[in-house]
Amino acid sequence: MSTPTKYLLDESQMPTFWYNIVADLPKAPPPVLHPGTLQPVGPDDLAPLFPLELIRQEVSTEREIEIPEPVREIYRLWRPSPLYRAHRLEKALGTPAKIFYKYEGVSPAGSHKPNTAVPQAFYNAQAGTKRLTTETGAGQWGTSLSFAGQLFGLEVLVFQVRVSYDQKPYRRAVMETYGARCLPSPSTETEYGRRVLAQRPDHPGSLGVAISEAVELAAQREDTKYALGSVLNHVLLHQTVIGLEAMEQLQMADAWPDVIVGATGGGSNFAGIAFPFIGHGLRGGAKPRIVAVEPAACPSLTRGKYAYDFGDTAHLTPLTKMHTLGSTFTPPPFHAGGLRYHGMAPLVSHLKELGLIEATAYTQTQCFEAGVLFARCEGIVPAPEANHAVKGAIEEALRCKREGKSETILFNLCGHGHFDMAAYQKYFAGELKDETYDERELAMALAGLPSVPEPA
Amino acid sequence: MSTPTKYLLDESQMPTFWYNIVADLPKAPPPVLHPGTLQPVGPDDLAPLFPLELIRQEVSTEREIEIPEPVREIYRLWRPSPLYRAHRLEKALGTPAKIFYKYEGVSPAGSHKPNTAVPQAFYNAQAGTKRLTTETGAGQWGTSLSFAGQLFGLEVLVFQVRVSYDQKPYRRAVMETYGARCLPSPSTETEYGRRVLAQRPDHPGSLGVAISEAVELAAQREDTKYALGSVLNHVLLHQTVIGLEAMEQLQMADAWPDVIVGATGGGSNFAGIAFPFIGHGLRGGAKPRIVAVEPAACPSLTRGKYAYDFGDTAHLTPLTKMHTLGSTFTPPPFHAGGLRYHGMAPLVSHLKELGLIEATAYTQTQCFEAGVLFARCEGIVPAPEANHAVKGAIEEALRCKREGKSETILFNLCGHGHFDMAAYQKYFAGELKDETYDERELAMALAGLPSVPEPA
Repeated sequence: MSTPTKYLLDESQMPTFWYNIVADLPKAPPPVLHPGTLQPVGPDDLAPLFPLELIRQEVSTEREIEIPEPVREIYRLWRPSPLYRAHRLEKALGTPAKIFYKYEGVSPAGSHKPNTAVPQAFYNAQAGTKRLTTETGAGQWGTSLSFAGQLFGLEVLVFQVRVSYDQKPYRRAVMETYGARCLPSPSTETEYGRRVLAQRPDHPGSLGVAISEAVELAAQREDTKYALGSVLNHVLLHQTVIGLEAMEQLQMADAWPDVIVGATGGGSNFAGIAFPFIGHGLRGGAKPRIVAVEPAACPSLTRGKYAYDFGDTAHLTPLTKMHTLGSTFTPPPFHAGGLRYHGMAPLVSHLKELGLIEATAYTQTQCFEAGVLFARCEGIVPAPEANHAVKGAIEEALRCKREGKSETILFNLCGHGHFDMAAYQKYFAGELKDETYDERELAMALAGLPSVPEPA
Repeated sequence: MSTPTKYLLDESQMPTFWYNIVADLPKAPPPVLHPGTLQPVGPDDLAPLFPLELIRQEVSTEREIEIPEPVREIYRLWRPSPLYRAHRLEKALGTPAKIFYKYEGVSPAGSHKPNTAVPQAFYNAQAGTKRLTTETGAGQWGTSLSFAGQLFGLEVLVFQVRVSYDQKPYRRAVMETYGARCLPSPSTETEYGRRVLAQRPDHPGSLGVAISEAVELAAQREDTKYALGSVLNHVLLHQTVIGLEAMEQLQMADAWPDVIVGATGGGSNFAGIAFPFIGHGLRGGAKPRIVAVEPAACPSLTRGKYAYDFGDTAHLTPLTKMHTLGSTFTPPPFHAGGLRYHGMAPLVSHLKELGLIEATAYTQTQCFEAGVLFARCEGIVPAPEANHAVKGAIEEALRCKREGKSETILFNLCGHGHFDMAAYQKYFAGELKDETYDERELAMALAGLPSVPEPA
C-alpha cells in the first residue's frame, strides 16, 4: 500500500485558534430572544448561567478566537486526533471515491465532547466558579464534563435521566471515576425535581426535566454555573478544532473534500468538521458539498420548521430560531441518544436556510448496518450517533461508484461505541426496530410553537 | 509546558522486524517436553494446531523476524501507538521521576492483543487455514482474534467461558460485530463439552474447559487451527513491536528508562515492552531494572514454583518449564481476568531465573486505587490488568520521591477499561474484595506437579 492509512499531526501543529463562522456569513444569524419581552437577550440575561468569557464567545463576530494555553495543554492528551484514509472500506464498496474520516473517539471520554467540555471548565474555573451542573442522557456529555471539571478542580454535578441511570450504570461509573457526582433525575435536590416526584414518584425522567434541575441549581448559587454540550454558538465554536486539523491533514494527503458528511443531533460534531471548510468556501476557496445526516425518527432539519422555539421542554430557556420539531415533541427511544433532540443548533439551522448545507435522514437499522460494515473493514466500532455519518459517507461513495467519479469524501467519526454494545447486540438479534414518530404528535408540537413576530 | 505530552511516530517509522530475545540470552531456555515421552517436542507434534510459520517462530533463534507487509498494513490502523509523558500524574505524586507510558488501548480491540492476533490470522490464512478456534474469558483475546480473522477472511469460533458469556454480553456483541461466532463453553459442539455437560448441565465453564473445546475442534479438522493469546514464544515475539516503538519514542524525548514496569498474567504485554530493552542491555547497552507486577491473588512469579507443568487444566498441552501455581490451581475471581492464569510464559520465567527481571505483587483494591488516580490525572481509564502496571509505576515514582532521584520510569498501559466498568462500579461502592487464594489448595496444586527428571 503506497498511500498512508492515517495522517497525524504533531502537538506543535495543533490549531491555536478556534474558527468562528459568524465572521464570514453573508447574513447575520437571527437574534436570541427573551421569552417574556421577545427582545434580544443581552449578556446580563445569561450571566447567572455562564461565565462572561463564554457569553462573549456566544455573541462574538471575530473570525479567530485564541485557544488558551491551559486548554491546549489538556487537548494534547488526545489532540491532534488522527485523520484516516478508509482504504479497506473503499475496497469493500468497490468505489472510485477516496474516503477520509476524522476520528474523535481517541479522547478520554470517547467522543468529540471534551473539545468543548475542557474550555467550558477552564473559563468557569478562571471566573471563580466552584461547581458545574449539567444534564446527561446516555452519559457521553456527562462523562466529558466530569473529566474536564476534574482537571480544573471543579465539582461536577450531573443529572442523569433516571431510566438511563438505572439501565446504563457503566457510564455513571466512568463519571465517578473522574470524580463527579451523578444523580438520577428527577431528584430530590431541586424544587423542580421534588415537584415532579410528588406528582409521580416513579417518573422515568427526561432530558427536559434534567436540564431544568441543572439550570435551577446553577441559577440559585453564585458559585455554580451550568454547562451545555451542544446547540450553543460557543459549543460549536470549540468543536471547530476538528475541521481545522482535518484541513492540515488533508493537505498532507494532497487531497481536498468534494463532500463533507456529519451526523446531526444538536449540531456540534457536524459544525466542528464542516464550519472551517464552509468558511474557507465563503472566503473564496473551494466549496465542498456539506451533508448533515440525521435520524429519520428525529428529523429536525428535514421535517422540522424553521421558527423561534424553546431549547427545553420546561420553557426555561430563551427563544432561538432553529429547525425544530416543537419543544413538546418526544423522539421515540432509538439508540443514538446523542441525536434525540427536538431542535437543531441555531447556527446550523441558519446555514441550512442560507443554502450552505444539505440534509438527509436515515433509519437506525440502515445506520447500524453501515456501522457493522465499517467496523469489519476499519476495526473501529462506531457509536450509534457516528453510524449516521458512516451511512451518509457510504451513500456518497456508492453514488460516486454509480457515476464513475473519484470524489474525495470526508466524514467525522465522532465517537466509538464501546458503551453502546447493547444496541449492537439488539441489532444482531434482529430486535432493533426502526422506531418512528407519531405524525399527529409532530403536527401538534409544531402547531404549539410560540408565536413570535419577525423582527424588523 | 515546554516538554511534549506525547511522542508519535509516523507509519513509516513503524518497526519492520519483531525482536526475538532468545538470540541474545546467555543460556537457552529449557525445551518443551512431550507429556508422554518426556522428550522435547518437534514441529510435527505442534502441526495439527499451528501453521508451520508460527511453529518456526516458536523455536527460532534468529534475532530479527520480519513483519510481513500485509500484517504491517493492518498494524497501521492503530500503530505506531503513542508514548505519553505522564506530566499530570508526576505532579499529583510530587515525584522528581519522569513517568512515560506506552498506550496500547488505541487498537480496535482496546488492548495489545491484536499485535499477535493479526499475524496469527495472517500466517494461518497464508497456510490455507479456513477456520480458527480459540477460548476467551472476559473476551479481550476473543475480540482481538475476531477482528484479525475478519480481515483475512477466516471464520473464527470463540469458546467463551459460560459465566462470562452470560454476565458480559457486550464483549460478545463486539466479537459478533467483527463477524465471529461465539459459543458458551461448555458447548454441545465438542465431545469434551458434551461430556462435561452430561455430568453437570449447569456447568459455569472455565478457561481450562474452553481451551480443551477449542483444541479438540482444531485437532479434528485439517482446515481448522487453534490460536493462543499469550504464553507462547511466538506470541511474546509479536508483542515486541511495543518495546521497539517505545525505544524510538524515548529517543525523541531524549530519555532512556531506569526502570520498566509491566503487568504479568500470561506474560505477553510485559514481554512486549520489556524484551527489546533487556536485549539491548544483554548486547552491552544500558540495563534498566525490569519489574513484573502480578496480582497478589494469582502470584505465579512471586509464589509459584519454577517447574515443568501443563498449560491447561485438562492436561492436553505439552509440558513447559515455567513459574506455576500448579495446573489444578483455581485463581479466585478477581477482576483482572487477563491475569488469572496458573502459569507464566516460559520465556518470562526463564528470564526471572536468569536474574534479568524482578517481580512484585499487589492486591486488586491497591491496583484500582492507582487506576482511579491515573484516570483523574491522565484521562484514560485503564483496564484492571493495566492497573497493575500503573500501581507498579506509581510505587517506583514514590520511591524516587523518597530517595530524591529523578529516574525515568516506563510502563505499558496495555488496554483501556471501557468494558470493565462494572469492576470500577464495585470499587466505588466499596464492594471490591481483595480475594485471596487458599494456601492449602496452592500447596496441593504444587504437590501435584508432574514429575519430570532434569534433562542431561
